[in-house]
Amino acid sequence: MLDNIRIVLVSPLYGGNIGSVCRAMANMGLSDLGIAAPRRNDMNEARMMACHATEILEGRTEYPDLAAAVADCGMVIGTTARLGLYRQHVKSAREMASAALTASDNQKVALVFGREDNGLSNEELALCTQLIRIPTTNEYESINMSQAVLICCYELFVATDIYEPPIEKCEIATSEFRERMFEIWKETLFEIGFMKDDKAEHMMLGLRRLLSRGSLSVDDVKIMMGIARQSLWAATQKDKK
Amino acid sequence: MLDNIRIVLVSPLYGGNIGSVCRAMANMGLSDLGIAAPRRNDMNEARMMACHATEILEGRTEYPDLAAAVADCGMVIGTTARLGLYRQHVKSAREMASAALTASDNQKVALVFGREDNGLSNEELALCTQLIRIPTTNEYESINMSQAVLICCYELFVATDIYEPPIEKCEIATSEFRERMFEIWKETLFEIGFMKDDKAEHMMLGLRRLLSRGSLSVDDVKIMMGIARQSLWAATQKDKK
Repeated sequence: MLDNIRIVLVSPLYGGNIGSVCRAMANMGLSDLGIAAPRRNDMNEARMMACHATEILEGRTEYPDLAAAVADCGMVIGTTARLGLYRQHVKSAREMASAALTASDNQKVALVFGREDNGLSNEELALCTQLIRIPTTNEYESINMSQAVLICCYELFVATDIYEPPIEKCEIATSEFRERMFEIWKETLFEIGFMKDDKAEHMMLGLRRLLSRGSLSVDDVKIMMGIARQSLWAATQKDKK
Repeated sequence: MLDNIRIVLVSPLYGGNIGSVCRAMANMGLSDLGIAAPRRNDMNEARMMACHATEILEGRTEYPDLAAAVADCGMVIGTTARLGLYRQHVKSAREMASAALTASDNQKVALVFGREDNGLSNEELALCTQLIRIPTTNEYESINMSQAVLICCYELFVATDIYEPPIEKCEIATSEFRERMFEIWKETLFEIGFMKDDKAEHMMLGLRRLLSRGSLSVDDVKIMMGIARQSLWAATQKDKK
């Protein structure tokens, strides 16, 4: 689903960042990495940070410049931290994600990240059909390049709806089952002398409130019933002694 | 708004990760960093990766263990990559963000991240009131610790609605203004001999389609009118010569 989306880094400074980008891409299901106008990077550092995503690192394509790296793409999305002239019409990473995903149905899409120190030049921005900006506080806007890539890849991956959150396999207790539990607790709390007639209603309402703050599963109710029953049994045994 | 939310790292292995966490926190408006059961980390590496977020790094609080680090917190959110026993009831980072933000109105909230190699122990998980998991592909689930922190902080920051995307200050052209532009283009395209009577309607519809794919601003229309007018003028000059 994300096969038509290419991550393009323009002249990245640090091998470690390239590696972190590979790992972030692998986490989020992207695999097409292009480096435009590459420098001599520390590839040992890159491999270290790529961790188990070295396949993406070794499979990267190097291009002489950005124009070549996006030549076969329809949509070209640039990322910018600055907001000067030509950089006003930015969208957020989240808005971009669904647009990019839709576009990728029938075209290659490039997501372009500039140099760590200098971003994208105006000539490079001109190649972009749209611009995005990662939301940050005004106090510290400069986001690490690989972190910016991660957020974009994360938004793309979430937008695909590929990820299915694990569903807690638990049956929710019915009202009837919960009421049986409260009955046993009531009996127990009388028996162990925790409550007397005049305070019983008030106390039981407190217990109900406490146990109704989240939904109770069948297993939860069984645990609470078990405690009450055992407590009742222990108290009765004591009486017998 | 995010002042009541603490990021807690449990025994982080790498100074560089601690530094990256500080930068991510600063980008996203968080400032309370706790380290539970700290090791001896390479703080030079931490400072390097923190970049301009050294204030958060220097201001961190160290705690003997996780219990101490979250002692004053109401909601304690653990992060986990694994999905074993006790780890089924996980929410996504996005679901967590709004819940954490609401809770932080009247309580301290901790977001807890485990060791790079081993995550959180069962004893540590027991301290958590809820668990989250960052969405990743099944192929490569192991996300870098500082990247996991970034995604959580990013989701929190986006959930605050503090960030106002820059609004493109442009007036959208009205239909009347656009029609004047098309009139001038029509005249020009006849004059320069680009279209003849029999193809004119077809060509003008093509031009309309092309210029209506996105909304046109007043400035856009002025540029397009200017080109047509100048072209008309140049063609007429040539005729005169």
